[in-house]
Amino acid sequence: MPELAFDPADLWHLDLEDIDALEIGSGILGTGGGGNPYVGKLRARQALAEGLDLAVLPLEKIADQAWTISVGGIGAPVVGVERIREGREGLRAIRALEEHLGLTTDAVVCEEIGGSNAFEPLLVGAFAGLPVLDGDGMGRAFPEMQMTTFSIYGHKSTPSAMADVHGNVVLFQHATTELFHERMARACVVAQGGGSDLAAAPMRGSFVKEFAIPHTYTQAIALGRAVMEAQKRHDDPIDAICKKENGRRVFSGKITDLKRHLRGGFVVGEAQLSGIDDCHGDEASVLIQNENLVFSRGGQVEVCVPDLILVLDVDTGEAITTELLRYGQRVAIVALPCHRLLRSDRALEVVGPAAFGFPDITYRPLPLPEEVS
Amino acid sequence: MPELAFDPADLWHLDLEDIDALEIGSGILGTGGGGNPYVGKLRARQALAEGLDLAVLPLEKIADQAWTISVGGIGAPVVGVERIREGREGLRAIRALEEHLGLTTDAVVCEEIGGSNAFEPLLVGAFAGLPVLDGDGMGRAFPEMQMTTFSIYGHKSTPSAMADVHGNVVLFQHATTELFHERMARACVVAQGGGSDLAAAPMRGSFVKEFAIPHTYTQAIALGRAVMEAQKRHDDPIDAICKKENGRRVFSGKITDLKRHLRGGFVVGEAQLSGIDDCHGDEASVLIQNENLVFSRGGQVEVCVPDLILVLDVDTGEAITTELLRYGQRVAIVALPCHRLLRSDRALEVVGPAAFGFPDITYRPLPLPEEVS
Repeated sequence: MPELAFDPADLWHLDLEDIDALEIGSGILGTGGGGNPYVGKLRARQALAEGLDLAVLPLEKIADQAWTISVGGIGAPVVGVERIREGREGLRAIRALEEHLGLTTDAVVCEEIGGSNAFEPLLVGAFAGLPVLDGDGMGRAFPEMQMTTFSIYGHKSTPSAMADVHGNVVLFQHATTELFHERMARACVVAQGGGSDLAAAPMRGSFVKEFAIPHTYTQAIALGRAVMEAQKRHDDPIDAICKKENGRRVFSGKITDLKRHLRGGFVVGEAQLSGIDDCHGDEASVLIQNENLVFSRGGQVEVCVPDLILVLDVDTGEAITTELLRYGQRVAIVALPCHRLLRSDRALEVVGPAAFGFPDITYRPLPLPEEVS
Repeated sequence: MPELAFDPADLWHLDLEDIDALEIGSGILGTGGGGNPYVGKLRARQALAEGLDLAVLPLEKIADQAWTISVGGIGAPVVGVERIREGREGLRAIRALEEHLGLTTDAVVCEEIGGSNAFEPLLVGAFAGLPVLDGDGMGRAFPEMQMTTFSIYGHKSTPSAMADVHGNVVLFQHATTELFHERMARACVVAQGGGSDLAAAPMRGSFVKEFAIPHTYTQAIALGRAVMEAQKRHDDPIDAICKKENGRRVFSGKITDLKRHLRGGFVVGEAQLSGIDDCHGDEASVLIQNENLVFSRGGQVEVCVPDLILVLDVDTGEAITTELLRYGQRVAIVALPCHRLLRSDRALEVVGPAAFGFPDITYRPLPLPEEVS
């Protein structure tokens, strides 16, 4: 490649406070999933303590011809909490893929900004000496791999490489469809114990610049800072989130019933809620597949994928991931509009309610910031 | 490689009658599994009709330094019967592996001589213009991949390549154990629909000569011919099999009950039998995981893996594969001693009754031919 992949002067080097803010922000954008960010934060702190560089590159600063590889954890969030990683899974996956293809990566890309998958590319980048682009493939978290804007807008995510905690490495050399890739990788990750890392086929810088959800590291860290700020000032953090992200508080309530189990490598279930405060007496529910998918009140769907449904601790404003939901928790439900890249017909085929097994639910998009007067 | 991998003058080119005999012989040695050989026979006939060469090379004639690759179908036999293959799965698997490793194969090796997996390497060899060695990794059929003499005696079967009917190709680049390879591949094959082809890591000719069960194509075809001969002469084909293979007829009966289902990519279950003829009144059973594992009479185990338990049509002497067992079938149960390579302590850890979930069953080897006076 004749040109440089990027100018090192453009890098943003994350510090401890950024990491703390990212834990909160990525947890909120994770809509219940993406892996619990607490473990990710601890690992990132450890990396900083070891002198490693957690670097973010503005999306628009990557060269068109640069090679980027997206990487992230795959598996059920509950496994990510109960079983600690070995640590270099993602690095092994990227190296296996580079070797198989005979190329070298210039930057790492985040598959999903939600949850611990915001930290995974940062750590892989730190180990490999590469920056992570400021953007991601979901702008939130989704449970399946074909649900990235990269796949939706035509990137073929194989060949890919998956590495697990034991040292196993699998290359998905060719999948006939993105869904087959997801199915095969999901089956493999279950055989590997339920939590591994996957690096997908390299993308050119030009493609990522066009189709990544932009600036989501900036967004997540700013969101986390807003919550920390509100906590410090004893302001209502839920209000701070709604203001920052053009969100709407749709419910405040207590979790009165919870069905949750591990099926095919996913956490699936439903949380029932009873209203408190101003919506006292209301009954609501949230359907789950790793992430929060559908919010209903009194049996009527009010918010659904791809818009973001946040289940937040009503006092701290921090996200409660689906594997940590408990009976009796007091939560606020906040709805955020998803990015417009997730709202096209093409995108809704992959991340709309029908794709999650709810063909009867019609997606009614929440207004985007520029649409709100 | 300075020397030739083999001398073409040593090849045995199979004809139509060999193919017909191999169907019968591989079905019998399949001990109920290995995939139904009927479909394999039809595909081999088709290959001959198209002018392809189904060539077998005597095991001892392969050069020490030659590269050989074992290949076979992986999945549940019942899927192999209900879903017709695309045909070139095995060839795609070998090509993917050769390309990944940057080497060229000199000969194909049979993973298991039992059932359709006797035909699969012949067909792959015919497509690739390569012979198949006269030997295999099981001398029968077993349900799992780590159960080959190759794995048992130290060959690391990754990197391997799996190709399915759709066109998906997965490379298992590194597995920490043979069992992990099996688990990951099994999970993948289920995601691919339950029946694919896998080519395992290349082996040197010297290794295969030492650890393959020798001459099993010769054995299977001669066994098939003996059955065809007996059928023609209206002799008892069961007697012919017992005589040829040092077998023992342990039961004649009717299938009176059958539990069989697909679990984790395997056909598992149990057939209950009631005696007819000389053993009238006896009750017996055969436990199944793709293959026949344990034969019991009156609740007492009489024969178990790794020795061969054949369920044969009492009139024709032909094998009834586990997916074709039906209520009311009249069958003879014949027990054959397995090869001594399957009887070492090392082998019994992998293919003895405990490995199949029967830790309380003690393996009592049937006498080998040379031990019978």
